[in-house]
Amino acid sequence: MQDEKARVRLDVSYDGTGFSGWAAQPGQRTVAGVLSAELERLFRTVEGLTVAGRTDAGVHASGQVCHIDVPLAAWEALESTVLRRLAGLLPPDVRVFGARRVPPSFDARFSAVFRLYRYRISDAVGGVEPLRRLDTVAWPRPLDVAAMNEAARALEGEHDFVAFCRRKEHATTIRTVSEFSWRRDDDGIVVASVRADAFCQQMVRSFVGAMLAVGEGRRPVEWPASLLAASSRSSEVLVAPAHGLTLLEVGYPANESGYLAQAEATRRMRVR
Amino acid sequence: MQDEKARVRLDVSYDGTGFSGWAAQPGQRTVAGVLSAELERLFRTVEGLTVAGRTDAGVHASGQVCHIDVPLAAWEALESTVLRRLAGLLPPDVRVFGARRVPPSFDARFSAVFRLYRYRISDAVGGVEPLRRLDTVAWPRPLDVAAMNEAARALEGEHDFVAFCRRKEHATTIRTVSEFSWRRDDDGIVVASVRADAFCQQMVRSFVGAMLAVGEGRRPVEWPASLLAASSRSSEVLVAPAHGLTLLEVGYPANESGYLAQAEATRRMRVR
Repeated sequence: MQDEKARVRLDVSYDGTGFSGWAAQPGQRTVAGVLSAELERLFRTVEGLTVAGRTDAGVHASGQVCHIDVPLAAWEALESTVLRRLAGLLPPDVRVFGARRVPPSFDARFSAVFRLYRYRISDAVGGVEPLRRLDTVAWPRPLDVAAMNEAARALEGEHDFVAFCRRKEHATTIRTVSEFSWRRDDDGIVVASVRADAFCQQMVRSFVGAMLAVGEGRRPVEWPASLLAASSRSSEVLVAPAHGLTLLEVGYPANESGYLAQAEATRRMRVR
Repeated sequence: MQDEKARVRLDVSYDGTGFSGWAAQPGQRTVAGVLSAELERLFRTVEGLTVAGRTDAGVHASGQVCHIDVPLAAWEALESTVLRRLAGLLPPDVRVFGARRVPPSFDARFSAVFRLYRYRISDAVGGVEPLRRLDTVAWPRPLDVAAMNEAARALEGEHDFVAFCRRKEHATTIRTVSEFSWRRDDDGIVVASVRADAFCQQMVRSFVGAMLAVGEGRRPVEWPASLLAASSRSSEVLVAPAHGLTLLEVGYPANESGYLAQAEATRRMRVR
């Protein structure tokens, strides 16, 4: 059958510095735009490019996941060489490191069970390590990581995170944050890990903005969790810079029945 | 005394991508050139900028060390603010993360007891992780890290490394390599650590070039060590790309008598 399709999962990483975010926009250089152009060059027909995390302008990814539908014959002809071909076609700030056929029930966005983000901050007096300046934010004052970690842990669990969300009409802002922690790594970098079933827009960067106020001592440790009682976006929460943020991993159920069940549950919740 | 000087040790890191190496050259953007300009802006008079490792064009550093002599009065006036001021003056690809007064016997070049370099290679089919493309070389074929490590270990010890050196007149090519090892890190990157008392020009990149021939299976594990018997530079050893190489650390004796003894020993050996 000439019209038979293959659904393909792509694992993608990118340096967000030179992109106006993931989503294709006319006249803008976007990850979806650059990726689509090269996928179409290879497969001729590419339908339904769908992504797990629609990252904003300047945000990076090392473990982004998307899916496409391509003609089965094209997939079978390209399967063994697609990664090498894409590496030759794509610019150095985007990379496809995995490509495999999945059941049509797999939906990169709706089947996802968690997204894991990282945020990197340097509070060193001399500034950011030059080789890591692409994904590390310079902070001019010392940060109390223990206080930030305590404040972050208090946001874990299922809550209405409307105070930390750019509000969209008719979309829930209830999310389950399974991990939000801070640590200082061996290089002295202050690193956040944030894992949730899904995120509303600018949620991680709003979390980080609130934690920076705690880390500097401008706000008490209890302040971020107190905002969970709010019924609208808090104007007191600043949105931290985009370039410290990287989407590390997207988690999926182990099998096809899991894909379907998760997609149904997600659609019911209308999370993004 | 207005003429009294302070010797100052500076710890420096840089992304070598935009530099024609360390050493100042007319009409070229170099690390020494950029750093000197800002140091002179702060201290007015800066003498004797001397560096531990004169890195070539494109090579990075996260733990470079240099020293300068400045008027004592200027040092005392700036000591507490020099790192913050330099962070504001320097471009984002150079950073001074340490500045402290040292005895005049401290010589960044001649007192050093070891230099430690790292080299990063990605042999993944999809190419290099975009956020680490500044300091990671893409290799198009899979590498046998165990074979590379065995070949590397055979170069450890005191040898005449002339086969791996760009020859300079009247300079010894005898060096003591205390560590040369390869491993695959958690991200799948093939990483070399090379530590020696000192290095001749292009020595680490020549080491890596020889190891790549072993890692691809083009040469036997014994081949690099067999070149130690050579009496001149080997034309069979390719020099690996500069941007995979980073100077991580320079080691010094623990105290002032150590600085002097080491500097005397180094000058006797005429190492660079």
